Amino acid sequence: MEKVTVIGAGSWGTAIAFVLAENGHDCLLWTRREQQSFEINERHTNEAYLPGISLPTNLQAVSDLKTAIEHAETIVIAVPTKAIRDLCNDIAGIIEKKCLFIHVSKGIEPDTLKRISEVIEDEISPDKREAVVALSGPSHAEEVVLRHPTTITAASTDQLSAERVQDLFSNNYFRVYTNSDLIGVEIGAALKNVIALAAGISDGIGYGDNAKAALITRGLAEISRLGVKMGANPLTFSGLTGLGDLIVTCTSVHSRNWKAGNLLGKGNSLDEVVSGMGMVIEGVRTTKAAHQLAKRYEVSMPLTEALYAILFKDIPPKGAVDELMNRTKKHEIEDFFLND
Amino acid sequence: MEKVTVIGAGSWGTAIAFVLAENGHDCLLWTRREQQSFEINERHTNEAYLPGISLPTNLQAVSDLKTAIEHAETIVIAVPTKAIRDLCNDIAGIIEKKCLFIHVSKGIEPDTLKRISEVIEDEISPDKREAVVALSGPSHAEEVVLRHPTTITAASTDQLSAERVQDLFSNNYFRVYTNSDLIGVEIGAALKNVIALAAGISDGIGYGDNAKAALITRGLAEISRLGVKMGANPLTFSGLTGLGDLIVTCTSVHSRNWKAGNLLGKGNSLDEVVSGMGMVIEGVRTTKAAHQLAKRYEVSMPLTEALYAILFKDIPPKGAVDELMNRTKKHEIEDFFLND
Repeated sequence: MEKVTVIGAGSWGTAIAFVLAENGHDCLLWTRREQQSFEINERHTNEAYLPGISLPTNLQAVSDLKTAIEHAETIVIAVPTKAIRDLCNDIAGIIEKKCLFIHVSKGIEPDTLKRISEVIEDEISPDKREAVVALSGPSHAEEVVLRHPTTITAASTDQLSAERVQDLFSNNYFRVYTNSDLIGVEIGAALKNVIALAAGISDGIGYGDNAKAALITRGLAEISRLGVKMGANPLTFSGLTGLGDLIVTCTSVHSRNWKAGNLLGKGNSLDEVVSGMGMVIEGVRTTKAAHQLAKRYEVSMPLTEALYAILFKDIPPKGAVDELMNRTKKHEIEDFFLND
Repeated sequence: MEKVTVIGAGSWGTAIAFVLAENGHDCLLWTRREQQSFEINERHTNEAYLPGISLPTNLQAVSDLKTAIEHAETIVIAVPTKAIRDLCNDIAGIIEKKCLFIHVSKGIEPDTLKRISEVIEDEISPDKREAVVALSGPSHAEEVVLRHPTTITAASTDQLSAERVQDLFSNNYFRVYTNSDLIGVEIGAALKNVIALAAGISDGIGYGDNAKAALITRGLAEISRLGVKMGANPLTFSGLTGLGDLIVTCTSVHSRNWKAGNLLGKGNSLDEVVSGMGMVIEGVRTTKAAHQLAKRYEVSMPLTEALYAILFKDIPPKGAVDELMNRTKKHEIEDFFLND
């Protein structure tokens, strides 16, 4: 039994805490909102995020960050990308013992172009943390809490830390693989949201499965080209956090990023979409970061560029997608995989 | 303008002929059924396969194979895998000039374990054919005839033949890439139907997107391992005929193989499914061939083996899928990609 604190009680943070508590760990779930903490402790539900689900009775919530951090041997960060740096800065002011840090976020910090594990390493001093582990893969929270079979990857440059996470989470419906390619896992996890936006746009325009499959294929190829230049193992992009997560995100109508893309494809402006959905759309921020990464690493990323033009330069979606489908190169391997 | 004959007036053969006729080629569509030929010539429709679609008026059909073959400079084979050897044998008895052969079929001949291009080469003597070209990719016929953007791969060991096919078919909604990896394209095209069956079974059992994404990811990895042993380029499996076609097949409720798997997952027997659907389910035959290929090339293919056990050894689907999800290895790259 380990003492674990999950920071963030959205649907995924709650599902992660659900698995940990079911596995018998002493798990605390931190939420900023007292009312939500009360609901989890008294009624064992989190209706706003996981409607209809009974949470394990040994799962306790808390809204005080100091209590949450003092409890933990292991800390799981499960807040939107945008909030991570500030949150880790707050944790740095509290934390007293050396903890294992896990994150489940999918994004890249714009401008600094840092991966999430790098942001955590920036803020938490080395004497207060083990090697950071990214936990990522094709995993709708709603299915995990129904105990449907789910596979996921624990990635770290330190194999022992990855194995510790594997042991923490593994059970008969939640299967954890390790991967030492932290760069590939974090890049794949973040950039699949860019492709999901593009897939949603194609569907929103009214194009079919053929066009969407082409966009996803070319999208994964360009992410893979970028990742390899950044030092990733190309096989990671064909694994659970690349291909696997991409399939779930691009083909599920529950995916926020797909949904946002779909609304854009139907003619809504980015402002309308963002304000209308009232939720964080990680892919929008990640598109900006991906555009910057393509420049820094000098990788040709036509899908990312098309999306950047749609989101930030007011280029009409249909024109951008049609242009992408009608590029001049004609050899599949050259055009998709060697074009950098 | 080229003289092309398409053999087989199912939905995909008709869509292929639609594109060729729209591109201004002198295209004949052969069907065994006189009534269907009459409908195409008189009413310019093929209601049984593409309901509601008006075919180009310059597209003519014929039910006499001799007339069809005598017309052609290029022959497109668009019949189920099972019928190809006999059909090519019939063509061999008629054909007088050297033609370019294209096929659009997705399968492997059981027992001989030959790819479709090899079956064609067996039956048509070298003085009657140029290099065979496989045309394959994520392409629902129904979307092609609505002129929705579609990308596809023309694969041949002979680059000039592949480029000739590219020129024949390319237009503003139908984009053709070339690929010199004929083995990879044919293996990917055939074996994705095995994965589609498995994906359907998972959905039929009632498992969610997480489980399906895991099966697809691991399925593509094992196909890729097999293909590489057979001489294919691993990148091909991440391209249009691998990943691209797989996405379309596994996530569309219109896919026959997915549908058959879904019925199996719900508890129907293979006999009930095959007789109930009344259509060719290529994946069933391909599972047998894949099982034989895994043996011949000594490649570990756990998903294929699980499916083979379900289809041909009466192992209950849920037990087989659960076992597949709970295998003992624990490192993603090792387990998915290097395990052969």
